[in-house]
Amino acid sequence: MEIIEVNTKSRPSRVYCGEGAFAELGACVGGKEAFVVTDTNVQRLYGEQIARALPGAPVCAVPAGERHKNEKTLFKIFDAMLAAGVHRSAVLVALGGGVVGDMGGLAAALYMRGIRVVQVPTTLLAQVDSSVGGKTAIDYGGVKNVVGAFWQPDTVLCDPLFLHTLPPREIRCGLGEILKTGLLDAAVGEKLWASRGRLHDLAFLSEIAADCVRFKARVVAEDETEKSGVRKCLNLGHTTGHALELAYGRRSHGEYVLIGMWLESFIAEREGVCSPEHAQYVRDTVRLALPRIPAFRGARDCVRYALLDKKNSEKGAVSVLLSAGKGEYAERILPAARYADYLGILEERA
Amino acid sequence: MEIIEVNTKSRPSRVYCGEGAFAELGACVGGKEAFVVTDTNVQRLYGEQIARALPGAPVCAVPAGERHKNEKTLFKIFDAMLAAGVHRSAVLVALGGGVVGDMGGLAAALYMRGIRVVQVPTTLLAQVDSSVGGKTAIDYGGVKNVVGAFWQPDTVLCDPLFLHTLPPREIRCGLGEILKTGLLDAAVGEKLWASRGRLHDLAFLSEIAADCVRFKARVVAEDETEKSGVRKCLNLGHTTGHALELAYGRRSHGEYVLIGMWLESFIAEREGVCSPEHAQYVRDTVRLALPRIPAFRGARDCVRYALLDKKNSEKGAVSVLLSAGKGEYAERILPAARYADYLGILEERA
Repeated sequence: MEIIEVNTKSRPSRVYCGEGAFAELGACVGGKEAFVVTDTNVQRLYGEQIARALPGAPVCAVPAGERHKNEKTLFKIFDAMLAAGVHRSAVLVALGGGVVGDMGGLAAALYMRGIRVVQVPTTLLAQVDSSVGGKTAIDYGGVKNVVGAFWQPDTVLCDPLFLHTLPPREIRCGLGEILKTGLLDAAVGEKLWASRGRLHDLAFLSEIAADCVRFKARVVAEDETEKSGVRKCLNLGHTTGHALELAYGRRSHGEYVLIGMWLESFIAEREGVCSPEHAQYVRDTVRLALPRIPAFRGARDCVRYALLDKKNSEKGAVSVLLSAGKGEYAERILPAARYADYLGILEERA
Repeated sequence: MEIIEVNTKSRPSRVYCGEGAFAELGACVGGKEAFVVTDTNVQRLYGEQIARALPGAPVCAVPAGERHKNEKTLFKIFDAMLAAGVHRSAVLVALGGGVVGDMGGLAAALYMRGIRVVQVPTTLLAQVDSSVGGKTAIDYGGVKNVVGAFWQPDTVLCDPLFLHTLPPREIRCGLGEILKTGLLDAAVGEKLWASRGRLHDLAFLSEIAADCVRFKARVVAEDETEKSGVRKCLNLGHTTGHALELAYGRRSHGEYVLIGMWLESFIAEREGVCSPEHAQYVRDTVRLALPRIPAFRGARDCVRYALLDKKNSEKGAVSVLLSAGKGEYAERILPAARYADYLGILEERA
């Protein structure tokens, strides 16, 4: 097990990566009152382990799935916290995938103006990305993550024990963010290509997860609240990914990020942000996890979702983060019509 | 006009106190996109001035009154922000009393994980207390301010121009927090007693408001998030005040704080926290604004509201902040039954 420090200004946190991380949960709560937020799937699979790790702690199991990442579910968590009489000194344990982490984290950020939170990510996506860095949010009004807060966890426990029960779709979802990290960090990229035969091997995934966390910890420590722009690099593929996710649903977040990176490689190439060779490298990287890019009928229309993206700063324009080279990125702000034309590439199967 | 700096760790803010403060609004927004949150009363009285100060800025007027300080109104603000296409670089202007400030501040804290906010308090209460220090919240599940965040405003503009249209009830409400400050800061206390004939004179109120802001700025700079305990002193009278407010409604927040301080003077005396003379001084101070303390039938039952208070850290016990002497305070944690007995004092008219 490895311990990675995330030295943010607001509150430093520690990420435990590897086997045995979950066994630290009791010690992390440290005798304080605990309140567990999880989802019904995780509760079914790991309910007993949770009860053993935190005897007597109240558990709030929200319905599973991104479509429940909304204000209704958030306020159900508050209902449960109030019913349990949770104090300001308590620790909220968010045990689940990205949705549980985002909502549990936000509940902790807001309950009595903020209580401590321990994140226990149970999906590959949450372990390599969303549980680290303090971003919390719900979706609202058709916009992803538009209501939220930066709220750093005290501790994040990334234990591979949870990966054994993940369906293939969830592994592919995590691979989306892992391959994204591979484009942002040249060393991670090389490792991924060198081990491309092991992308579904849990031992390898657990090892690369720690690499991804280490990379993200550096980025987040430098730019906790996405002010200087450094943290924006983590949005590679996300402008298009989020827009497609809102418009079409069904597929996982990570899969949409992969499709977003694929499409945005064409944007980077045609806007002169990267060489044709690098654009091809991006597409080849995406194909390590997603051999075939599906077609999206009417993809151009997704521009209206992209226009709602938080990253945008100009009316009528869309901000995209592009891979400019190995370990390099650049932001481009495109007029809506030009971005819509690029989306048109997705209308035919590749 | 005076400028008071609030040097908090998360984000320093500046409070402009005095005539001409409102005229700085345009400059504070500094050419950025602005979004105004106000209430229907303030909109009726000052709608034109707002439109002149921020031409073209969208205005969201929420229904007036503490009972609207809830999640429904908060999400209506988000609806309006999304409909207006507000960007992350925008400035939210919260222009109104404490309710508008609390909800507008929380909307700013959460929209796209936080945008800048300028507070323009229009009531005496908001000018002397709630607009400064970054506490934002809504009430939920019968608990005051239980969902919220610490989110420092960039700027606070306290202009006496708004005080002219306040009804006497609102002046008394502000006096509650002013007299509380008088108990916490000996110099403010002396000034209040020396000028006790001018407590309804707007020129005097505007002057003492700046003193209260200066005091609060010191406290908040030392303990922004109520962690070290220093900021807790601002809760004098509030445990009982909030419990009565939840149980009986109708009266203003400041009036309940006055009644709370009156009752808690008996607690302080009987618990040995202060001398009988000081307890009498507290009651005399309260009477400067509230000559007669009303009786509350069934006041003992309010203990169940006090048990939900955020300050509590032990199950079955109530935390109260007590005036221990001029400029001194102490926290006491009382078993629920003992606190309920003290509440019994309120059952007979004083």
